[in-house]
Amino acid sequence: MRFLIPLISSAVSSAHNRIASRLLNALPTKPQRSAVPPFLNCQPPSMAASEESLRKALAEKLSAVEAHGNAVRALKAAKASKPEIDAAIEALNNLKLEKSSIEKQLQAAVSGGDGDGALSREAFRQAAVNTLERRLFYIPSFKIYRGVAGLYDYGPPGCAVKSNVLAFWRQHFVLEENMLEVDCPCVTPEVVLKASGHVEKFTDLMVKDEKTGTCYRADHLLKDFCNEKLQKDLTISAEKAAELKHVLATLDDLSAEALGAKIKEYGITAPDTKNPLSDPYPFNLMFQTSIGPSGLSPGYMRPETAQGIFVNFKDLYYYNGNKLPFAAAQIGQAFRNEISPRQGLLRVREFTLAEIEHFVDPEDKSHPKYSEVAGLEFLMFPREEQMSGQSAKKICLGDAVSKGIVNNETLGYFIGRVYLFLTRLGIDKDRLRFRQHLANEMAHYAADCWDAEIECSYGWIECVGIADRSAYDLRAHSEKSGVPLVAAEKFSEPREVEKLVIAPVKKELGLAFKGNQKNVVEALEAMNEKEALEMKAALESKGEVEFYVCTLGKNVPIKKNMVSISKEKKKEHQRVFTPSVIEPSFGIGRIIYCLFEHSFYTRPSKAGDEQLNVFRFPPLVAPIKCTVFPLVQNQQYEDVAKVISKSLTAAGISHKIDITGTSIGKRYARTDELGVPFAITVDSTKNVTIRERDSKLQVRVNVEEAASVVKSVTDGQRTWEDVWEKFPHHTSGSADD
Amino acid sequence: MRFLIPLISSAVSSAHNRIASRLLNALPTKPQRSAVPPFLNCQPPSMAASEESLRKALAEKLSAVEAHGNAVRALKAAKASKPEIDAAIEALNNLKLEKSSIEKQLQAAVSGGDGDGALSREAFRQAAVNTLERRLFYIPSFKIYRGVAGLYDYGPPGCAVKSNVLAFWRQHFVLEENMLEVDCPCVTPEVVLKASGHVEKFTDLMVKDEKTGTCYRADHLLKDFCNEKLQKDLTISAEKAAELKHVLATLDDLSAEALGAKIKEYGITAPDTKNPLSDPYPFNLMFQTSIGPSGLSPGYMRPETAQGIFVNFKDLYYYNGNKLPFAAAQIGQAFRNEISPRQGLLRVREFTLAEIEHFVDPEDKSHPKYSEVAGLEFLMFPREEQMSGQSAKKICLGDAVSKGIVNNETLGYFIGRVYLFLTRLGIDKDRLRFRQHLANEMAHYAADCWDAEIECSYGWIECVGIADRSAYDLRAHSEKSGVPLVAAEKFSEPREVEKLVIAPVKKELGLAFKGNQKNVVEALEAMNEKEALEMKAALESKGEVEFYVCTLGKNVPIKKNMVSISKEKKKEHQRVFTPSVIEPSFGIGRIIYCLFEHSFYTRPSKAGDEQLNVFRFPPLVAPIKCTVFPLVQNQQYEDVAKVISKSLTAAGISHKIDITGTSIGKRYARTDELGVPFAITVDSTKNVTIRERDSKLQVRVNVEEAASVVKSVTDGQRTWEDVWEKFPHHTSGSADD
Repeated sequence: MRFLIPLISSAVSSAHNRIASRLLNALPTKPQRSAVPPFLNCQPPSMAASEESLRKALAEKLSAVEAHGNAVRALKAAKASKPEIDAAIEALNNLKLEKSSIEKQLQAAVSGGDGDGALSREAFRQAAVNTLERRLFYIPSFKIYRGVAGLYDYGPPGCAVKSNVLAFWRQHFVLEENMLEVDCPCVTPEVVLKASGHVEKFTDLMVKDEKTGTCYRADHLLKDFCNEKLQKDLTISAEKAAELKHVLATLDDLSAEALGAKIKEYGITAPDTKNPLSDPYPFNLMFQTSIGPSGLSPGYMRPETAQGIFVNFKDLYYYNGNKLPFAAAQIGQAFRNEISPRQGLLRVREFTLAEIEHFVDPEDKSHPKYSEVAGLEFLMFPREEQMSGQSAKKICLGDAVSKGIVNNETLGYFIGRVYLFLTRLGIDKDRLRFRQHLANEMAHYAADCWDAEIECSYGWIECVGIADRSAYDLRAHSEKSGVPLVAAEKFSEPREVEKLVIAPVKKELGLAFKGNQKNVVEALEAMNEKEALEMKAALESKGEVEFYVCTLGKNVPIKKNMVSISKEKKKEHQRVFTPSVIEPSFGIGRIIYCLFEHSFYTRPSKAGDEQLNVFRFPPLVAPIKCTVFPLVQNQQYEDVAKVISKSLTAAGISHKIDITGTSIGKRYARTDELGVPFAITVDSTKNVTIRERDSKLQVRVNVEEAASVVKSVTDGQRTWEDVWEKFPHHTSGSADD
Repeated sequence: MRFLIPLISSAVSSAHNRIASRLLNALPTKPQRSAVPPFLNCQPPSMAASEESLRKALAEKLSAVEAHGNAVRALKAAKASKPEIDAAIEALNNLKLEKSSIEKQLQAAVSGGDGDGALSREAFRQAAVNTLERRLFYIPSFKIYRGVAGLYDYGPPGCAVKSNVLAFWRQHFVLEENMLEVDCPCVTPEVVLKASGHVEKFTDLMVKDEKTGTCYRADHLLKDFCNEKLQKDLTISAEKAAELKHVLATLDDLSAEALGAKIKEYGITAPDTKNPLSDPYPFNLMFQTSIGPSGLSPGYMRPETAQGIFVNFKDLYYYNGNKLPFAAAQIGQAFRNEISPRQGLLRVREFTLAEIEHFVDPEDKSHPKYSEVAGLEFLMFPREEQMSGQSAKKICLGDAVSKGIVNNETLGYFIGRVYLFLTRLGIDKDRLRFRQHLANEMAHYAADCWDAEIECSYGWIECVGIADRSAYDLRAHSEKSGVPLVAAEKFSEPREVEKLVIAPVKKELGLAFKGNQKNVVEALEAMNEKEALEMKAALESKGEVEFYVCTLGKNVPIKKNMVSISKEKKKEHQRVFTPSVIEPSFGIGRIIYCLFEHSFYTRPSKAGDEQLNVFRFPPLVAPIKCTVFPLVQNQQYEDVAKVISKSLTAAGISHKIDITGTSIGKRYARTDELGVPFAITVDSTKNVTIRERDSKLQVRVNVEEAASVVKSVTDGQRTWEDVWEKFPHHTSGSADD
């Protein structure tokens, strides 16, 4: 689960540590700013150009205003004629008006031509978040103790949504694909995370307020400074603006030293106190602890679930009958000790991941079910389009694979499955795109990486990463543990292969090199095919060659009788190799947050005096599928409601009875706010109405049928449209409309 | 989730810290030994008596043998006659035979009269555990790095069982009872666990090998020593045996000092090295970490999930419309840094808990659905029966509640629901009992506690704790946070109450006491009713009284005009109180392990040459519900198998196709080992057979019907018996029998 690193923590994404960045497959994209680097923004190129020319025009106009102001003063001092002075003043005022106009245009340009859009996004988010917090979809953790930044609880409806999302994930991926699900502990010994590289590289650059000791993320401070300057200070020159933009674009590539130098150069101080800041230094983002009582076994709370799968590869391969391909999956908590979390549910210190590791023969990355998704068409944002400043466009997945835009069928298959998963949850397909990693974003070993990015009020947020990580992870654990994590392809009949054989003659080498014999032997054996064949030729022609032994740091003379080099034919019965792994990795909390935003809307109340909040969750994820309301407080109706409730329970439909005397309109509004798709209202002992949340349409159904009708729609056996066609419509007294 | 503490860690259960023990509601029961203290063992009292008399008899016999041996030697030295010597030797041999016989009886007595039973339990466990590990139900975590004690992964079938158990838990408790499920982080700030008492009290006593530093649990070493001595050393006196038994019985009540003294007295050394041991000292069992980069905010991985619910009480109460009773629930990981974990899945360092906190008015603990469980009858083990040495017996739950054995209806309701939950999972009802806590096991604030204990090869294991914890937890967090965690009962009409009113007359007090006025006012206002009424009477009769002001440390004279004391009638509109909480708390890993043991059995293969392993999981928890086998490798059959597989997927039935050429008998055996309840074998293109795992019976069904038949049985809509009655039986060539 490397993809989330840049978003959840940009330590690794900021390429102050190039190896970390590659090792952990980092993205430079972050939610705080546009998900693609500024120079790749989806605005037409003219926009950027116009900003630059506006800055130049503004600078010119400012000089002109100043010059003209001086001229007017000079005229006055020289007691020029009134008409002359008046004309000059009018010209000055015109210039000022022009300056204002340019300022306005520039303001609009720097806020992405979208000043109003940003405002309304902010207002939309505020409305959604207010509803989410008030209805306990989520709660800042430990609130009575003033909370802890970056930790959130899911309250009852949020918890139900989460459990529905995870159940669907398990159905859509684990069950339908026969994946091997595992469940490993969060507490992880250091050796595992040393092998994966997290102990050394999983860091963010931090600066400290030199007086108070408060910590900040160095790149955040620099980014905030540049954005602030660009957006608020219209007087900076076009050159300065270009420089700041360049800093933003290359932020992730800055070393600790470069970042520190920029902070000094721009005079950036601690935001809260204006105190000077320390130099940036790396802070490891893992929660550290100690396993057992001795204090001698360091451990960490896992930063991803993937490592638990890799270390079990051997057993899982055996469980799968020693056959490839197969996929293992894991759902679980992961932890990152963020320096200063912000952005609510999107950047948190503890979160749920769902990860798949699909192990495949690197020589055959086809997928048997690929054809089932090849016809899908959705927004893709290939590398090429990003580099040339274009925007994401609808592409047929099959075309993307056949044209080589997507590296292989299996990667394409998972991209398609992720698309289906997200859209079935209720993610708007027009605000979902698959963005390919740029070459410099990818780990050196990765074959190809795509992120499913979802647009919300914070911008484009990467929510799923789908990466072909080649054999990197299994090799790393093989090396560290000494346990070979490999697969074998058995040949139906043995194959003949030609192999290079280097056989040092130890007796002769011992006589010649005495104590250095071992170094020479090792160096001879380490030659590659080309070197060995050259030596063989040289020995045959000259009888002796000079040979550099790096562990001795010098050349030694090798004679013909000291080594035999030959190519031999061998029969092999199998091919042993380290499988490649294709890793789709889901940040469940981010998907849920984006789903909240995509599902939220408001509509006026019946009286038109207030805006009512609605979540248009599909039944699949709705926290409660159905409410049951007696229309008025009345024993008979309550009894009917209880009978229906019992049938709903038997059918496994989560629901709620509300027998309060509140008006039916208010009760509908309350459940709309929770995204409950259906409401059964008991207004007789024989028939009841079923109301659909978004259309507010109602049908009349027998008491006995009510539960099964709701079940059939929530299970997806039929649609609301089917129900609307089949059952009589309820028109009179539709209470909420 | 306090109940699991003694089992998962006995720090708290060992009452070296009485407050901890009470605070955390500890049990003295542990799986390492009988779940009830030895003196309460369910053996008939005669057994213990016979052991004592046997020890005495053995001691006498040993003396007699020694004396007689001396006599024989004396006769020989005195050159007595041969017949005389022979007679003496025969008598000695008879004595030796008698001694052997007593030794054997004693051996049987100390091993609970059950030496063979213990052996077969061990063998049974070995067979079950071998199958579980081989088929990857669970895997020691990080195995390629030689693992970490107390950490386990669930492999694919184990993970599926776990996810089925949790899904059923959610259905049975959260959905059916309309509980408010929440999901809180594992990372918890120190203040929360200070309020709950964990920071101070959640400790185990530890000793260190003074040379190597290796750590041991002090009580474990003492217990092992006593058990070893009692079972292996038959020569100890009856008095010594009684002493050791007393130590075992009171182990949990020993202070650090007493434990250390016993270890010294018995000369117990480090088990591995025989080095001397340090004095016992407390070790906190929480995994500690640091939140944020400053290093100044200590945090812990939560040792239970309950605290996350308590701190959210206010919001949840509001969410429930400010009404009691309601229950909140949480499923999640919890962590305990065990000193030296043993017993496989039963005592681990990270585990899944499912906890319910049912908040209720302390003045009304009735439950609306109580009647639904009152008729249940199952094994209960009330306090009374434990104290008088009886065993658990079948009791009707309703009787237990009405007789006051179970404290209240709500507690009884949950005991009943837990019984239904466990038995529906497949726990054997004859190896499940509900044991009441003894008075000294319970926290001082607790009203009543019962543990659901399941018998497995390790003895009786507590798997669910059901405790009425009164208002303790909410009060603790109220006090620490300053946020009132209370509920209110609104009166339908205001009630008149008489209240004491103490009104100091500040003017007079100011004149009299000047700078000390405030202290005097506070002291007057702090009087309780009795003190105030006495003062009122004294002032009325004498006009002046001496009054002790503790903040001044002296008496002051109070005159009649300085304070007015009266009883006034007031109207109150509501009663404000701290709710009681009834807490059912489930150790999911332990339930699953016991379920594994209760489901496991072996049966001979067809040829009778080997024992085959079977798990008789009910469909509800079976990791895979169904397998699909083409009888022979054949394209037509494979196509049919794929069609059936598709319908199973559509029906949401987890299944597996096996198209290997392996014999059908072997394929059945393989899936029996995974506990798969049904197998569909394709032996024609029209009809297939469905085989039931335990009976091995097969019916013939149309290809089109196969999936829906399996679905109906796994969903519980009909039983296998129904299917067996309805469909034609398949008799010929039942391949595995």
